[in-house]
Amino acid sequence: MLPTTNPAPPFAITRSSHVRMQVTDLERSRDFYRDVIGLVVTEETEDAVYLRGWEEVAHHSLILERGAEAKALAIGLRVRTDEDIVKAEAFCKQAGLRHERIELDHQGPTLRFVDPVGTHMELTSSMTLVERKHQRFAEFVAGAPQRIDHYQVATHDVQAATDFWTSIGMRLAEYTAKDGTDELWGTWMEVKGNTHDLVYTNGRGPRLHHFAYTVPDVSALMHAADVAGDLGFGDEIDRGPGRHGISNALFLYLRDPDQHRIELFTTHYQFIDLEDEPMRWDLSNAKRSQLWGMPATRRWFYEASEFPDEPVLEPLLQAAPATLEDVLGVH
Amino acid sequence: MLPTTNPAPPFAITRSSHVRMQVTDLERSRDFYRDVIGLVVTEETEDAVYLRGWEEVAHHSLILERGAEAKALAIGLRVRTDEDIVKAEAFCKQAGLRHERIELDHQGPTLRFVDPVGTHMELTSSMTLVERKHQRFAEFVAGAPQRIDHYQVATHDVQAATDFWTSIGMRLAEYTAKDGTDELWGTWMEVKGNTHDLVYTNGRGPRLHHFAYTVPDVSALMHAADVAGDLGFGDEIDRGPGRHGISNALFLYLRDPDQHRIELFTTHYQFIDLEDEPMRWDLSNAKRSQLWGMPATRRWFYEASEFPDEPVLEPLLQAAPATLEDVLGVH
Amino acid sequence: MLPTTNPAPPFAITRSSHVRMQVTDLERSRDFYRDVIGLVVTEETEDAVYLRGWEEVAHHSLILERGAEAKALAIGLRVRTDEDIVKAEAFCKQAGLRHERIELDHQGPTLRFVDPVGTHMELTSSMTLVERKHQRFAEFVAGAPQRIDHYQVATHDVQAATDFWTSIGMRLAEYTAKDGTDELWGTWMEVKGNTHDLVYTNGRGPRLHHFAYTVPDVSALMHAADVAGDLGFGDEIDRGPGRHGISNALFLYLRDPDQHRIELFTTHYQFIDLEDEPMRWDLSNAKRSQLWGMPATRRWFYEASEFPDEPVLEPLLQAAPATLEDVLGVH
Amino acid sequence: MLPTTNPAPPFAITRSSHVRMQVTDLERSRDFYRDVIGLVVTEETEDAVYLRGWEEVAHHSLILERGAEAKALAIGLRVRTDEDIVKAEAFCKQAGLRHERIELDHQGPTLRFVDPVGTHMELTSSMTLVERKHQRFAEFVAGAPQRIDHYQVATHDVQAATDFWTSIGMRLAEYTAKDGTDELWGTWMEVKGNTHDLVYTNGRGPRLHHFAYTVPDVSALMHAADVAGDLGFGDEIDRGPGRHGISNALFLYLRDPDQHRIELFTTHYQFIDLEDEPMRWDLSNAKRSQLWGMPATRRWFYEASEFPDEPVLEPLLQAAPATLEDVLGVH
Repeated sequence: MLPTTNPAPPFAITRSSHVRMQVTDLERSRDFYRDVIGLVVTEETEDAVYLRGWEEVAHHSLILERGAEAKALAIGLRVRTDEDIVKAEAFCKQAGLRHERIELDHQGPTLRFVDPVGTHMELTSSMTLVERKHQRFAEFVAGAPQRIDHYQVATHDVQAATDFWTSIGMRLAEYTAKDGTDELWGTWMEVKGNTHDLVYTNGRGPRLHHFAYTVPDVSALMHAADVAGDLGFGDEIDRGPGRHGISNALFLYLRDPDQHRIELFTTHYQFIDLEDEPMRWDLSNAKRSQLWGMPATRRWFYEASEFPDEPVLEPLLQAAPATLEDVLGVH
Repeated sequence: MLPTTNPAPPFAITRSSHVRMQVTDLERSRDFYRDVIGLVVTEETEDAVYLRGWEEVAHHSLILERGAEAKALAIGLRVRTDEDIVKAEAFCKQAGLRHERIELDHQGPTLRFVDPVGTHMELTSSMTLVERKHQRFAEFVAGAPQRIDHYQVATHDVQAATDFWTSIGMRLAEYTAKDGTDELWGTWMEVKGNTHDLVYTNGRGPRLHHFAYTVPDVSALMHAADVAGDLGFGDEIDRGPGRHGISNALFLYLRDPDQHRIELFTTHYQFIDLEDEPMRWDLSNAKRSQLWGMPATRRWFYEASEFPDEPVLEPLLQAAPATLEDVLGVH
Repeated sequence: MLPTTNPAPPFAITRSSHVRMQVTDLERSRDFYRDVIGLVVTEETEDAVYLRGWEEVAHHSLILERGAEAKALAIGLRVRTDEDIVKAEAFCKQAGLRHERIELDHQGPTLRFVDPVGTHMELTSSMTLVERKHQRFAEFVAGAPQRIDHYQVATHDVQAATDFWTSIGMRLAEYTAKDGTDELWGTWMEVKGNTHDLVYTNGRGPRLHHFAYTVPDVSALMHAADVAGDLGFGDEIDRGPGRHGISNALFLYLRDPDQHRIELFTTHYQFIDLEDEPMRWDLSNAKRSQLWGMPATRRWFYEASEFPDEPVLEPLLQAAPATLEDVLGVH
Repeated sequence: MLPTTNPAPPFAITRSSHVRMQVTDLERSRDFYRDVIGLVVTEETEDAVYLRGWEEVAHHSLILERGAEAKALAIGLRVRTDEDIVKAEAFCKQAGLRHERIELDHQGPTLRFVDPVGTHMELTSSMTLVERKHQRFAEFVAGAPQRIDHYQVATHDVQAATDFWTSIGMRLAEYTAKDGTDELWGTWMEVKGNTHDLVYTNGRGPRLHHFAYTVPDVSALMHAADVAGDLGFGDEIDRGPGRHGISNALFLYLRDPDQHRIELFTTHYQFIDLEDEPMRWDLSNAKRSQLWGMPATRRWFYEASEFPDEPVLEPLLQAAPATLEDVLGVH
């Protein structure tokens, strides 16, 4: 069954806002995100680097933290007010979700919690304001990403994840289901008025498949690819450029030095009106994943970043999309 | 004084949705918007043509109505639910605003009202759904506009207009004020999470200065200009291509056969978080209007479309931006 | 040994000009090149369709001829004057090359000949002039290819082919050689002042690997891909979008209904000055083929169009570039 | 009468190659061309800066020389071989043209001469080779100009200039003539196989109106404008972005700190075949100068850079194109 959105959620989520990644070589990762991807470095400390997109006035949308292992530490969402953090905390308590109030530099009231499928989340209601550099054109680098946009998480139970997030206000924009059934293989949920803030797809999980930034246009996307090639990261282009059927995103995926995956993309669409129906794609319809060209590799489909100390479960749904290896006849 | 946004507005506005223009030669105007601008024609009747952008699933975002005179008939906004129309009607009654419930083809419950500075508005909560043609790439025409985005209205009293709209939930993203004062010359207000849905600028009003559609990127914008030139509308490019300081829009303005003005643009920015402050621009700062290149002509600044039977008032604020004629020394 | 260009060639070749392809379903192929690729149809006869790019004033640069089998019939080059056709004929006679003067509609004096590695060539000195449609922006379709640019031919003997063409005036711009040797694996030769008019690469040949048209920019290239997807030819994108190291072309390859291959590309570079040295790439350097991303499939490397009644020979050089299948571990 | 091209010119010119500009503040001009335009600095000496485009392997295409006054020192063309310099010298002697053999750093044999309308020319047959940086994508700046392309010179006698240059091998691609007459107002002449290397237009002359570099695409062009605005040179955008009818160039003109003018542009077309006729534009046809949008200002039409000690003559032809001031009614 398709879940329906709670029109009166317990607290108000407003957008994807920041992602916290643990990396094993902080300087090398900083260089990658600054020079190859083209993010702005807001601040560096001994053990962390804070970055943001060129139009972002909030202090950070990507935090790199030094650690012994490559991990996805937390996926960040914004809530509207400080009061929403209080409400969210009460909600977690009532729902029996692991949660914790924490104090973090450059963030207002912040709540960590783990969703029912094990995704490590971080909610905050505000950040320190810094310069919006959207008109510092002379300083633009590589793809000149504008802002963080969404996350994709692999989960063993897409239905459970979707039920949870729609029950607290997220809305389904598009989804993939096993042919001839209502079994959900992937769900694209949004809260900020376009196609997605949070995506769950079927697979071993919870693991973060990628986080995504918007770029201004196809030229910026292609320039990012050219810059990656120039700087020795050409083999780390994990997929693309190509066009997703779902969401209409023109995409490019890259792997960072720890093999965390970032998507750069452009042109999804507005999704605000309540009468808009979520768009269904059959799992067998390869166009859901690419409107043209070849499918993604197994590497793209099956590699993702684990959360610390969070067990990875086998997916409930046995349904594998065709990979590039399948198409080329690899055994 | 800068108005503040009512956090609990009497009804929920969600976005700019449709504009209703009266035109004197319906076929000629249809051809212009279909062939030169590149909108999709959803439906034609004896006396009206309904058009939409390529990603719009709602039946129309531009309605051309046949009439004896060129007029702006109404600026349309969406509200979230049918219940919001009921609430809006109650609000208008209480506020003493001219208003009327009407029945219109392809729209759900609809309310017309006139705002305190004379702007003719139309609220609706839903529309007939049609095909989202965002992936019909082979049919794209000219600038291939994606969706309606915002309106700009000339008013005699920017402060009054801004006070009103922020009191019912709109939020100031950027504004222009007379140097050294708080006198508002122009206000860019939004409700959908980026820089503007509704703009008021100082001038003889109420008159509709322009309505705006987003295009995918700068190539689409330039192609629209080239197509306009090819089809004999090269002289109807009213301004641009250029870059606004305010909102960061890369813009192109065209005049239709009745001299109504449409803007095609790309790359404004997300504006969601409550701690974001509206950006101030001094009226004397030419960069607010263009980051580079020459200012707009008097024609662009001073010509606009009147609403039917609505008296046009002289602006309260005497503050004229520099025009191209000023810069070139025209007397 | 690198061949050197004859500074006083026996006749003056000026550019790549037209390619003649035999197709098994003329209407279907016409639709493909007109609607998916976006070429202009100049003229149709019972058994042939003539097409050209949007800036081409010559009658045709692609001729589709109806036939029982898919074949590459001839690769066309322009010579400067009618006198050059006479000189070319004398040259062929003296060199013992198969050749024939023929009369063709819309072409001036025309000479067919077969080069030393079996490539079927067609020289002409002029064509009927038609409209240059480069400013018919409103009619542009798909990638809106501007003009034919070059050909790539698979040959069993790259050295022989290169020796021949440089001896009659072509110039080497870039080349691939087996690592640590002077054995030529591929040669990019030009006559019109940029990187290539005629390319020979090592393989079973003679076979036409592809012919190439320039497109205005990366947006046009991506639009061509999107249009191909929209019109049901998404699986016929044979490679790309990507960036070649050699020539710097940003490329997209498509297969037509007979599996003939066309390249759309943008941004190669000027190559005029005599002191410019040809650029060498080692065969093992994957960047020669793509500056970033994955290598091409076996299909791209090994499938090509045969010339009628021309035996296909095994390559003299045993040196295989890494394919996508190799990289993915296909056996 | 339209001049015809000498098919056997006395020496072989191959392309536009370099321009030598005298500037009053060398550091400031270097910063402008490096940071705002985005050229590569090849070398700096005490009194000169050498720059080139990203695909240029020749040492320089722009030389800035420190001087007391802003001047255009010389317009450079390439000839094919050293022998062509010898032939050119003999030609100048015989033709009675002022000329001089000079030795210059980083250039092969070099000849300065003054053409019949007073244009200061510099021919050379080779340059020192440096790195072709066309694939150093990570270092690209602003418009990332690829290569020098052409020059436009104001002259008192377009007919004389055109007669001269066609008599030594240049070819007319497009031209403007006074309506109903053969009086030439402007001529676009080429030698490298596309629309122009050298342009003469009617006006007080000889003066260099502009020199031009190609950029990769419209996004690069617009980025150059945005960077100019960002770095405080927004008012130095002299014209555009716009589309010329003549040559089809999508253009942007900027003024350097000495008010020398540079054009960045993209998409002219190939012009090689002898049967192609030059395209005529009537002077009254505003589309020759812009396919859409407003005409250029008087400043664009009438300001240009003088050559040292070269008297400026009033134009023989009295024929003024409509300027922006004319259109706006400036008196």
